[in-house]
Amino acid sequence: MKPFKGERIFTPGPVELQDRIREVLSRQIIHHRTPEFKEAFLETRELFKQLVDCKEDNFIFFASSGTGAMEASVLNFFEEGDKVIAVVGGKFGERWAELGRKYKLQVVELEVEWGKSVDPDAVEKLIKENPDCKGVLVQASESSTGAYHNVKALAEITKDTGVLLVVDAITALGVYNMKPHQWGLDVVVGGSQKAFMLPPGLSMLWFSEKAKERLTDRSYYFDVKEELKKQKEGQTAFTPAISLILALRESLSILLEEGMEKVERRYRLMSEGMKRAIEVLGLKIFPENPSISLTTVIPPEGIDPENLRRSMLKLGVRVAGGQGKLKGKIFRISHMGMDIMDMPVVLSALELSLKSIGHTFGLGAGVGEYLKAVHPGVEDG
Amino acid sequence: MKPFKGERIFTPGPVELQDRIREVLSRQIIHHRTPEFKEAFLETRELFKQLVDCKEDNFIFFASSGTGAMEASVLNFFEEGDKVIAVVGGKFGERWAELGRKYKLQVVELEVEWGKSVDPDAVEKLIKENPDCKGVLVQASESSTGAYHNVKALAEITKDTGVLLVVDAITALGVYNMKPHQWGLDVVVGGSQKAFMLPPGLSMLWFSEKAKERLTDRSYYFDVKEELKKQKEGQTAFTPAISLILALRESLSILLEEGMEKVERRYRLMSEGMKRAIEVLGLKIFPENPSISLTTVIPPEGIDPENLRRSMLKLGVRVAGGQGKLKGKIFRISHMGMDIMDMPVVLSALELSLKSIGHTFGLGAGVGEYLKAVHPGVEDG
Repeated sequence: MKPFKGERIFTPGPVELQDRIREVLSRQIIHHRTPEFKEAFLETRELFKQLVDCKEDNFIFFASSGTGAMEASVLNFFEEGDKVIAVVGGKFGERWAELGRKYKLQVVELEVEWGKSVDPDAVEKLIKENPDCKGVLVQASESSTGAYHNVKALAEITKDTGVLLVVDAITALGVYNMKPHQWGLDVVVGGSQKAFMLPPGLSMLWFSEKAKERLTDRSYYFDVKEELKKQKEGQTAFTPAISLILALRESLSILLEEGMEKVERRYRLMSEGMKRAIEVLGLKIFPENPSISLTTVIPPEGIDPENLRRSMLKLGVRVAGGQGKLKGKIFRISHMGMDIMDMPVVLSALELSLKSIGHTFGLGAGVGEYLKAVHPGVEDG
Repeated sequence: MKPFKGERIFTPGPVELQDRIREVLSRQIIHHRTPEFKEAFLETRELFKQLVDCKEDNFIFFASSGTGAMEASVLNFFEEGDKVIAVVGGKFGERWAELGRKYKLQVVELEVEWGKSVDPDAVEKLIKENPDCKGVLVQASESSTGAYHNVKALAEITKDTGVLLVVDAITALGVYNMKPHQWGLDVVVGGSQKAFMLPPGLSMLWFSEKAKERLTDRSYYFDVKEELKKQKEGQTAFTPAISLILALRESLSILLEEGMEKVERRYRLMSEGMKRAIEVLGLKIFPENPSISLTTVIPPEGIDPENLRRSMLKLGVRVAGGQGKLKGKIFRISHMGMDIMDMPVVLSALELSLKSIGHTFGLGAGVGEYLKAVHPGVEDG
């Protein structure tokens, strides 16, 4: 049976595009050196300020994927030879370490078992052992494992020191009600195809006053200083991803209409519901402290997650597999861009797939457990 | 009188999006790590091969604006300290020189009067004077002045030497029937929002076997070696600009359905027609050897091109002004993405605007001259 409606994606980026976004993307192009674009861009910036709850203009958008903004962070806030601590507990932590080494930082890796969250005390200890440390590079949501690193706690350690806390929040921004200024984060990286529900190709870089004082001249395409000067005035140094900027305005409006507190609450509810559903089906949640952006699952012994994925795909539901050393060991269900009422679909596909390979449970058990968990929250909402 | 249908853009990027492209952009997103994307991406690559008339797989696409691919050229084909000649005859030539200096190349600037095309003999002489020269950086179409640099002639000089000819073809690729392999070019840069008629955010980088042998390890986000390995297999190192890749497949189909010979012929006709129309209206073509991608115009003494632009804009027609030191001195009309039958619109707006400020000529003279010029070509087509 081929799915009548085609594929539904529950992958941690890209995520489903809402009609409001698709409508913007389908519009005729406008020129970027016009009052019309400038106005739209400045409006987008105002909305982004509301999203991150900051008064300052310390952020920029790049025409690149999220990795581009990670590269920008390494190049713009650190000089060659600077020592940094990279928290490596997944594929994206590895990316921080690789980027640091590529651009000649001295990288001290703080290894974290994949699936675990970093212990803030371990970071504090390592900073003390490396008094010349200039920065800590970490993920908020390490989407390869589904773990959440408590960046707010890390900021308590770094905020009154010379250490910059650089947070890859690509799968956290727009999910968590992040308050980078209030929390004391220094650099925050975001990406369009995650909770902003846009196609990939636009990245965001927010930074603190402390980080701003360290700005270097190491990049041309990702030159934060130059871009900041232009973007504050509603322009960009190079041609912006025009249609994605216009669509970001729409996506920020969608998020702010709901309100970031409620957005986070929605994701918390989905995450809690998914956790209980997964467990009642006899599967396990992989991360110790799960990010609310996605649910990462280990199937019971003898069940190949790749078989499960293929089987769900036949029902028209795409979830993600494992990456790096977790390939073939886990599968991941994204919540990003999803509504509470979307998850019964992915759970139903999972239940049918588990059943078809002989796993025993009463059909509907997962969905039922999910509904029980979200029910009081929905009532309150 | 406000234009009933809104704005029509005749700017040298971004250019109007065709309905076929807008339809693709409005589609629901697909995941990039899927057989579906892989197939579409490999198909796009096959079409691109046809476009550049090459059998080899030596090209990649980046999620960035064109400047990103220029940065990639400087970082991936040259090492720190390498000496290069930058042909500087406009704003984009300046960009080459800036990029070279930023990434610690030794840049020898070959200054060309803005509006003039580089003399191949001057390049040959400068290479001889600098036997340690590793590359020549040049524009094909310098869109800030509208001049075309004869890159085919430059390749005759560099092709049997150790010098790489690096061509910013951002406003030439998809207009000229470029044959980089046959001509002997070494690096060719393209951008989505020009003759590919897409939104900005996707860039292209083609390179020769000679250039491939020089590949360095100087960039992470723009790592050509790594991307090439992945992209040959239908994947990318980092999240690609999914929707722009899918739309590029459509745009390449549009170009190849017409055929690149006919595409170039269409642009030649438009360029010739515009030249004659502009002259019959008593205005001057700025560049000595105009690129067929756009028409760059100097109004007669006493007529402010910015006034003209504003007046045309009131009629719903947007053309571009001058950049850098040409600001307020010229205006530029793009042909990219346009059909022969589109130009009477921009000429009509120009005629009405000239008339309204008292310039004397018979209304319709420009359009008439344009039609006379394109008429035999249209018959042949």
